[in-house]
Amino acid sequence: MDISIIGTGNVSFHLAKAINKAKGINLVSITGTTLEKARSIKGKKKLIRLDSISEIPKSDIVIICVGDDKIAEVSDEIFRSKILQNSIICHTSGSISSKILKNHKKFGSFYPLQTFSKNNPLNFSKVPISLHANKRSVLKHLMQLAEAISQDVRLLNDADRLQVHLSAVISNNLVNHLIYLAKQRLTDQNINEDILDPLIKETINKLKIMSSFDAQTGPARRNDKATLSTHIKDLAKEPELQKVYKTITKSIIKTYKLES
Amino acid sequence: MDISIIGTGNVSFHLAKAINKAKGINLVSITGTTLEKARSIKGKKKLIRLDSISEIPKSDIVIICVGDDKIAEVSDEIFRSKILQNSIICHTSGSISSKILKNHKKFGSFYPLQTFSKNNPLNFSKVPISLHANKRSVLKHLMQLAEAISQDVRLLNDADRLQVHLSAVISNNLVNHLIYLAKQRLTDQNINEDILDPLIKETINKLKIMSSFDAQTGPARRNDKATLSTHIKDLAKEPELQKVYKTITKSIIKTYKLES
Repeated sequence: MDISIIGTGNVSFHLAKAINKAKGINLVSITGTTLEKARSIKGKKKLIRLDSISEIPKSDIVIICVGDDKIAEVSDEIFRSKILQNSIICHTSGSISSKILKNHKKFGSFYPLQTFSKNNPLNFSKVPISLHANKRSVLKHLMQLAEAISQDVRLLNDADRLQVHLSAVISNNLVNHLIYLAKQRLTDQNINEDILDPLIKETINKLKIMSSFDAQTGPARRNDKATLSTHIKDLAKEPELQKVYKTITKSIIKTYKLES
Repeated sequence: MDISIIGTGNVSFHLAKAINKAKGINLVSITGTTLEKARSIKGKKKLIRLDSISEIPKSDIVIICVGDDKIAEVSDEIFRSKILQNSIICHTSGSISSKILKNHKKFGSFYPLQTFSKNNPLNFSKVPISLHANKRSVLKHLMQLAEAISQDVRLLNDADRLQVHLSAVISNNLVNHLIYLAKQRLTDQNINEDILDPLIKETINKLKIMSSFDAQTGPARRNDKATLSTHIKDLAKEPELQKVYKTITKSIIKTYKLES
């Protein structure tokens, strides 16, 4: 199966690496806005690097790995290519409907759910890949590609994928920034923030053996009003963090049906 | 060095286990509100289990491991014991000043920063222990105990410890509840929430090789207004989560000096 990727960002980088390792599938082209960017993506000898969609060679699947706001434009360019008229066209976006590709005969969504950074090595076989396609035959091919690079392949329609993406943003982006804020306020007070590292690690480690519902501890879980009010007072000069603290505390008290 | 612990909760459980493994220190007594609770704490043959502070035998250090609201009362009871008049009295609370123990000749704070659950095995040698004492000689003894069970021993005055505790609550308790909310909303929509697990794991794993500042990704980091506004709309029926989403998004935009 011959695959082409359009886009040269973090998702593209890790996806290309995973495809290069897999059996029975070949990455035949990578297209970037400049050849230099396309060159940053590793591939086997066969891989050609392009800066124009019109030059993409015959491919079974074309994966659009560009920013959400560029997908429609890229899709239109693919549509103008005679060579790609029988290709399956899919994108990797979490938040854009696959319908954006509906001009194509065969289209779908190929959504790997993970946080991708170029300088962070990643085991793609553990990355959940969610698929959706406009036809059963298209799904079959997307499934073949997905199963060649991951052990965790799921079917997810557009509406559900949007909800998964939103929950992913909450549990990755919002969580990461909360950790940043918790550490930054210590740095600002000349306290070594690395004291939090074992706790942060264990926060997630615990979730291997218990649910986040059962893992909840702390002053809000105990409805310890004295500590809660001291904390809220201590955050007076950090109004955004104070608002987040208050709101999540309220939600914990509600979730565990504690008297507030 | 002979140690007595008062309290039979999660901290006590893990602390007793760590002391039992260490060389040169002996856990001589454990006191709980009932003997049954005291029996739940494991110890060597020598360990006696008590339900009354007045019976605690001669100890170099007495560690108060009870709820914050019980520390003053326990401290008073210890004060009435003639046997413990020369003991170092310390507590393990993150949010209570060590001054609460100031009636005693030798007192201090012995604060292990970690999330403790009985059914979650823990490597105590990686738990940061923060110490504070009213005298240099007291600190020396607390240090000896702390270094026997952990590789990460720090000095932290009362004011700074309170700030560390608040940041710990943010990065553990608030983060855990955010993860709960992110998963629960998928469950409520009949979507398998375990799709988030590899992402959640990687969110923290990434922080081994980059700072939380550099690790930030997502629509807020890109100031992707279309996705942000879709997400905020999608959270209309989850007003608390919506408020948290908005507030943290605002903070990300501010932190990275993106035009809002």
